[in-house]
Amino acid sequence: MIGFDFEEEHIKQEITKRGAKCVLLQLPEGLKAEAPRLAEMVAKTGALAIISADPCYGACDIATTEAEGLGVDLIVHFGHAPFGVQGKVPAVYVEAKGSATVDAAVLQALPLLSSYNKIGLATTVQHLWVLNRAKELLVNAGKAVVIGDSGQMAYAGQVIGCNYSNVTSIASQVDVFLFVGGGLFHALGIAMSTSKPTIIADPYDNRAFAINQEAQKMLRQRWAVIEEAQVAETFGILVGLKPGQKHFEAALKVKELAEKHGKTPYLIVAREITPDTLLEFPSINAYVNTACPRISLEAPQKFSKSVLTVNEFMVAIGETSWENLLKKGLFAN
Amino acid sequence: MIGFDFEEEHIKQEITKRGAKCVLLQLPEGLKAEAPRLAEMVAKTGALAIISADPCYGACDIATTEAEGLGVDLIVHFGHAPFGVQGKVPAVYVEAKGSATVDAAVLQALPLLSSYNKIGLATTVQHLWVLNRAKELLVNAGKAVVIGDSGQMAYAGQVIGCNYSNVTSIASQVDVFLFVGGGLFHALGIAMSTSKPTIIADPYDNRAFAINQEAQKMLRQRWAVIEEAQVAETFGILVGLKPGQKHFEAALKVKELAEKHGKTPYLIVAREITPDTLLEFPSINAYVNTACPRISLEAPQKFSKSVLTVNEFMVAIGETSWENLLKKGLFAN
Repeated sequence: MIGFDFEEEHIKQEITKRGAKCVLLQLPEGLKAEAPRLAEMVAKTGALAIISADPCYGACDIATTEAEGLGVDLIVHFGHAPFGVQGKVPAVYVEAKGSATVDAAVLQALPLLSSYNKIGLATTVQHLWVLNRAKELLVNAGKAVVIGDSGQMAYAGQVIGCNYSNVTSIASQVDVFLFVGGGLFHALGIAMSTSKPTIIADPYDNRAFAINQEAQKMLRQRWAVIEEAQVAETFGILVGLKPGQKHFEAALKVKELAEKHGKTPYLIVAREITPDTLLEFPSINAYVNTACPRISLEAPQKFSKSVLTVNEFMVAIGETSWENLLKKGLFAN
Repeated sequence: MIGFDFEEEHIKQEITKRGAKCVLLQLPEGLKAEAPRLAEMVAKTGALAIISADPCYGACDIATTEAEGLGVDLIVHFGHAPFGVQGKVPAVYVEAKGSATVDAAVLQALPLLSSYNKIGLATTVQHLWVLNRAKELLVNAGKAVVIGDSGQMAYAGQVIGCNYSNVTSIASQVDVFLFVGGGLFHALGIAMSTSKPTIIADPYDNRAFAINQEAQKMLRQRWAVIEEAQVAETFGILVGLKPGQKHFEAALKVKELAEKHGKTPYLIVAREITPDTLLEFPSINAYVNTACPRISLEAPQKFSKSVLTVNEFMVAIGETSWENLLKKGLFAN
């Protein structure tokens, strides 16, 4: 079992230093089981601890409005780096650094990297601390390593589900990307954004593998949802209500474009955009999602209708071509 | 198919009269499919229409914070009567009066009422307009009819999932309750609150039936969850984040009582309290729900742990007895 660093001493110090009386703990799904233990730790400082049970997939989703309404004076947000959302209640970010070492996974990746010289490195916030070790192992094996820094993220080399600028900014300089982390989602994002071969070095399972087939499958899926949306007449334009996911202006632009192309658009707002949520609108043929792209990209088959990104919508209505979008990167802003 | 009155002329007049530029439409799940059509109607007035897709089970859940954050200047809330939630954005309530007539269902109920003389009448907001017709039919059949008015609800005779005061206030004066409406939930609430025989006259299906067996089953279920919670050591005290469901003071009182009885309580806040939400906390043995009682009462078997109302928690820790609670009514405040 891989552990995570919950920085308990740091949290206690922050509570004491700020004289916080009421602390809201917010954790992503994979870490929520630790919440009761952390609440007891907070209570020992004399502050009242409140656990947020709502789904949380990123720092875009920080519970600022909820905290304000509860009289909370400090949010402790776990598992994500700051996303630039400023609320009235101050927040401490605990990135929950994973205890996994990267050596075994990177050594497993070396044979898969044998035909490449220039390697782009990327990871999620949990494994940033082993990125330099990964670089060292690759350099020792004779590789040139580039870690991107677009200036848009909290850290160089960091990717999140809606921002791959740290890899697109160096794509032209590298032959392949090595992603350090678990799961397919972020690595697929890298492949979709850069059209480069992408390899995962998974420090949880100590294994490495290429995701070329999965990337090809995802491309076919994305083209299929675009094709389906091309014949749609009514479009639901989804606006997220989470503080860092609310792109109302972008939605209004999509609405205008839809009208220009003879489509009927409806603005739809939601906090959680789920397959069940969209089942309530049988008369809507397809959706354009301006909130978190992960919602529809991770499991498109769970949605009964096409759910497009704004970029994909531009292809569906013919404002740009699929080839141009691939060149620009599926996640480009 | 039963229709509902969406009061479209009234909505258009309100938008024009108020000069609203941006209108948020909020509908409960059963009516959401009408949202695109209503959005088109709003757009014809020149206002921008936004549809809320988040779940909505009552006027306790009016989207005031969301509306404010979107720059909305009028909320149109369908399917519920006002609940007393005041936000910064004005709201128009469209109660979505059902077109179903009550005659056939009440005539079917008469044989089931043959051994009773004094009948208490109750309904939900959709069927309030046929309540007097139901009364007339019962009086014509020689019955005495009482319609309760506790002063707590928008209308006499109206019940909602968390307030049965219109029936408890007249329970001692009647032999039986006749509930006009669909579904078992509200009728079970009447039976649980009053311990009186309860009969449903369903104007959707034009049929009538007694729910004694279902009420007995629900009582057994509630006793089972209380018994299970009696051996719990850790309690999650659930606080709802929807404006009319946030009972933070009540939760703090439950926390204090839990501590007094040697239990370990955790305050947990959530917008949507679902079986999945609670699965994230394996170390918590049982829950006390201070938000909407419907959450756990409608389908307790979907939750893997006991989810008690505050009243049931008082029984579980021995502050009152099950018999006393039944006498007082399961939903008493």
